[in-house]
Amino acid sequence: MDDYDLHHHGDREVGDGLVDLAVNVRLPVPPAWLRAELVSALDDLAAYPSCGAAVGAVAARHGREVSDVLVTAGAAEAFTLLANAVRPRHAVVVHPQFTEPEAALRAAGHEVDRVVLPASDGFRLGPVPESADLVFVGNPTNPTSVLHPASALRALARPGRVLVVDEAFLDAVPGEPESLAGERLPGVVVIRSLTKTWGIAGLRAGYVLAEPPVVEALRAVQPPWSVSTLAARAVVACTQPSAVDEADKLAVRAEQEREYLVAGLRSAGIEVAGAPRGPFVLVRVPGAADLRQRLRNAGYAVRRGDTFPGLDEDWLRIAVRDPAVTDGFLEALRRER
Amino acid sequence: MDDYDLHHHGDREVGDGLVDLAVNVRLPVPPAWLRAELVSALDDLAAYPSCGAAVGAVAARHGREVSDVLVTAGAAEAFTLLANAVRPRHAVVVHPQFTEPEAALRAAGHEVDRVVLPASDGFRLGPVPESADLVFVGNPTNPTSVLHPASALRALARPGRVLVVDEAFLDAVPGEPESLAGERLPGVVVIRSLTKTWGIAGLRAGYVLAEPPVVEALRAVQPPWSVSTLAARAVVACTQPSAVDEADKLAVRAEQEREYLVAGLRSAGIEVAGAPRGPFVLVRVPGAADLRQRLRNAGYAVRRGDTFPGLDEDWLRIAVRDPAVTDGFLEALRRER
Repeated sequence: MDDYDLHHHGDREVGDGLVDLAVNVRLPVPPAWLRAELVSALDDLAAYPSCGAAVGAVAARHGREVSDVLVTAGAAEAFTLLANAVRPRHAVVVHPQFTEPEAALRAAGHEVDRVVLPASDGFRLGPVPESADLVFVGNPTNPTSVLHPASALRALARPGRVLVVDEAFLDAVPGEPESLAGERLPGVVVIRSLTKTWGIAGLRAGYVLAEPPVVEALRAVQPPWSVSTLAARAVVACTQPSAVDEADKLAVRAEQEREYLVAGLRSAGIEVAGAPRGPFVLVRVPGAADLRQRLRNAGYAVRRGDTFPGLDEDWLRIAVRDPAVTDGFLEALRRER
Repeated sequence: MDDYDLHHHGDREVGDGLVDLAVNVRLPVPPAWLRAELVSALDDLAAYPSCGAAVGAVAARHGREVSDVLVTAGAAEAFTLLANAVRPRHAVVVHPQFTEPEAALRAAGHEVDRVVLPASDGFRLGPVPESADLVFVGNPTNPTSVLHPASALRALARPGRVLVVDEAFLDAVPGEPESLAGERLPGVVVIRSLTKTWGIAGLRAGYVLAEPPVVEALRAVQPPWSVSTLAARAVVACTQPSAVDEADKLAVRAEQEREYLVAGLRSAGIEVAGAPRGPFVLVRVPGAADLRQRLRNAGYAVRRGDTFPGLDEDWLRIAVRDPAVTDGFLEALRRER
């Protein structure tokens, strides 16, 4: 199924001095306290990396056992580990969503069944086939920005099924509602990322929360030392209570900035999909492909929507930025439409 | 086959203030020019990593095409990618050697056939079964320190066979003799590491050189962004001509230091295996397991040999260090034997 370019990502759309509303990384550089930690880690690089402290910090942050935690080289590695370890008979990806879970399943030789949530229903989570033994859902979902209720996710769990909830953007929702990270549920795997909130996409730092047998199965197929010393150090730093508090304050600000963006889009007559809860919004504009090009000429990069299964050329994803950037973007949008 | 602990590594034997002769990383910290490069990369961490410049630098360093190069999160990731991409019918690992290639093959669900080179023959490379379609050899081999002739390696190449030569330690041999890195040979895959020479084991930086179809097959199963921004930057820095020159000077010094160690071991009546060419030596001492413990009590960590298939409790691997450290070690060795 080569219908969508599953390896297209927002980072391909930036550059050339464009204002970046295409990539969902929120800080332009890591904060000073994190940078200092990373600089100090450079003196420890001769030793092989170890994730012991990071595993403990993640467990403490989510009230889980250390046996529930696997630290990974970003959420992306977790997708590959799941595809290689679970060996599903019937894998289902709930779309539209981040395309790398499906790409990882296909790279591992698995067929993938797509459940496409309709825009007409606000991309609300619906049923998946009963025979599905591996299911991927994003929460909040990239690119729709829809936050599914925890109850709807729990309802998808089944004996004999691995339900993967990608919470890569949940720390950008104030209070982290609807998270399953703190619950040890049979078959439920939660994936977390630290790269978006903390400006460290280049470092590759994330983790998986699951029952111990699942964690062990993933660890068995993880290349040794796959998480670098700096990534492990970042995981410790970013899961401390002070960092979690700071992330929540950033999330509150992002929420206000998103409301500002959404209000501006709607007053410009643009259709905003669903009820956005993440640090990006999905919009439908007839002729979006041409509009995107005109916006590029005007200096603004937004993310094309048509590489996401279930969307087409009329969709665009727009990152939430501060009001000054949003004002400039909205002005360009009104002009170029 | 759970006879050997394939995941045992020298880093488990250090700590507690012991002088480390167990781990084969040579610099205690990255050199200043590399550290400065890594510090500057911290300002680019918000962007997703890109290996474009690193691929070009590696190709230039070895006189290969960019289509021959895949940058990996250390050599360890390369083993996993090979195990997942090649899907061999008959995988062979030539032992004694680094255990992670076999571990990666087993983790991917493959049976592994061991060809064990005998100590009585100086661990000289011999034939492998004709039916082998995936063969792993180390050159120079960890832990034997034996450097196989390039001609003996080329003789193992066959149509329909992937021959993997792990050259993780070849930049520690002056002039890099017997390397296949500069040749595009059918079915031959060369793996390189930068972590040992440059004190960046914690960073995970290595690369694969192979024909383009093999590179593409490995890339297809590599998790996206698997190589961090800092690792990609380190690959560029460490493959510049000035760095290659510096590595060669370090290799010349290491060679002298190894000769010093070997002479000392032999004058102490210790049997040194083969004709060591790498920055470590393998020795056979009856009762090595007890000796290793006494050396620990005396403050020195050496690497146990019995976790390497083909070796037993009488073997130890000793890292080459500067003469002052070696003198202290040899004194302890004479005392504790």
